[in-house]
Amino acid sequence: MNSSTAVENIYLLVIVTLISVLQNAFFAQKVERECQKENKHTPSFERVSCANRNCMDAYPTFLAVMWCAGVCLSQAPAAFAGIIYLLVRQKYFIGYLGDTSQSTPGYMFGKRIIGFLLLMCILGIFNFLLCRYYGSDYKEYTETITNAASALLLLP
Amino acid sequence: MNSSTAVENIYLLVIVTLISVLQNAFFAQKVERECQKENKHTPSFERVSCANRNCMDAYPTFLAVMWCAGVCLSQAPAAFAGIIYLLVRQKYFIGYLGDTSQSTPGYMFGKRIIGFLLLMCILGIFNFLLCRYYGSDYKEYTETITNAASALLLLP
Amino acid sequence: MNSSTAVENIYLLVIVTLISVLQNAFFAQKVERECQKENKHTPSFERVSCANRNCMDAYPTFLAVMWCAGVCLSQAPAAFAGIIYLLVRQKYFIGYLGDTSQSTPGYMFGKRIIGFLLLMCILGIFNFLLCRYYGSDYKEYTETITNAASALLLLP
Repeated sequence: MNSSTAVENIYLLVIVTLISVLQNAFFAQKVERECQKENKHTPSFERVSCANRNCMDAYPTFLAVMWCAGVCLSQAPAAFAGIIYLLVRQKYFIGYLGDTSQSTPGYMFGKRIIGFLLLMCILGIFNFLLCRYYGSDYKEYTETITNAASALLLLP
Repeated sequence: MNSSTAVENIYLLVIVTLISVLQNAFFAQKVERECQKENKHTPSFERVSCANRNCMDAYPTFLAVMWCAGVCLSQAPAAFAGIIYLLVRQKYFIGYLGDTSQSTPGYMFGKRIIGFLLLMCILGIFNFLLCRYYGSDYKEYTETITNAASALLLLP
Repeated sequence: MNSSTAVENIYLLVIVTLISVLQNAFFAQKVERECQKENKHTPSFERVSCANRNCMDAYPTFLAVMWCAGVCLSQAPAAFAGIIYLLVRQKYFIGYLGDTSQSTPGYMFGKRIIGFLLLMCILGIFNFLLCRYYGSDYKEYTETITNAASALLLLP
């Protein structure tokens, strides 16, 4: 079946996307709950709203780069990096809401993971072009290297 | 033709995406028009800007979940749910701009539809895994059930 | 190889997506740098934050319409229009940060390019439906016309 083989190559990415959607719903519910309180311009409302906006600003970029990396090279390390990104995002969101006397973390987060996924995309495209114009296919090597390198993302 | 069969499975999703892009342009034009007025910090500018931002925050999530549901399970109910979502979003946007004495609706909207699409994705992935590891394919049953269940979204 | 032929039809779109992600990172870094300054409510912070938000609001719409146009009709003019859009976005962002005595540009930008991509999607879907129900395939004509028309985007 054609449709089934299409799902074969992306099902891990779909699972990570589903988890990210659940996390978005969790963030949105936090904002919703702060919205319904009486006085809106409290610091806690501003914090949760700002944390949610920063996460949502980065969300399309993350989705685009994860799917490109998964489709162009291989899905397992891309989905693994996606899971790590979601954990970092959860930590960022919780850290943003923290004690109001603390300073908030910056605007960006998960730079290393986005960089890793970008590198995966570039490798995949490069390999495809090599394969097309020179006939040499290094896909297996790059996949092995990427699988090994994705473990480096676990370093704090 | 390979490209034509690829379009076969997604053309309804593409049509819904096009309609959503037109709707985005409509929202953006409303913001643009308020932007060009003289004094920017009127309540009406804040309302239209906030309504647009809430809609845009939820947009990537909606696109991701609709496409995943359409690709993993079947496109017709996913596109139908997408159309209903766009109607709900239109109503939310108009309701947000309403009388300034009214209270605004909350941050989230269309929760039921996003939930339905999420469920479709989970069913599709689950069916794919069952099919892969046990060889039993319930795709036809799930498609029939999903088609019937999508009519429930019409309930107010 | 199945996966390789899948990449064949989208690799230009992936390259444009990668460039757009790099541009997003550039915008985010500008915001990050303004964030870390001492007093946050300066006009320059508001400008860079607003410019970034306007760009990010339009980003999922752009990605969705570029990918639909590339998949439904042909990837070369879609990727070309994407590159032009990124140049327009760069100019918009830089123009937004300009002299604080100048007025800022409006909320929308790149309307002509988004319109062109939308038209490509509609042509692609229309051609697919014609091909399916009447058996007449005008894809080559539409591709030639689109390739020629994409040069019009270079007009200022």
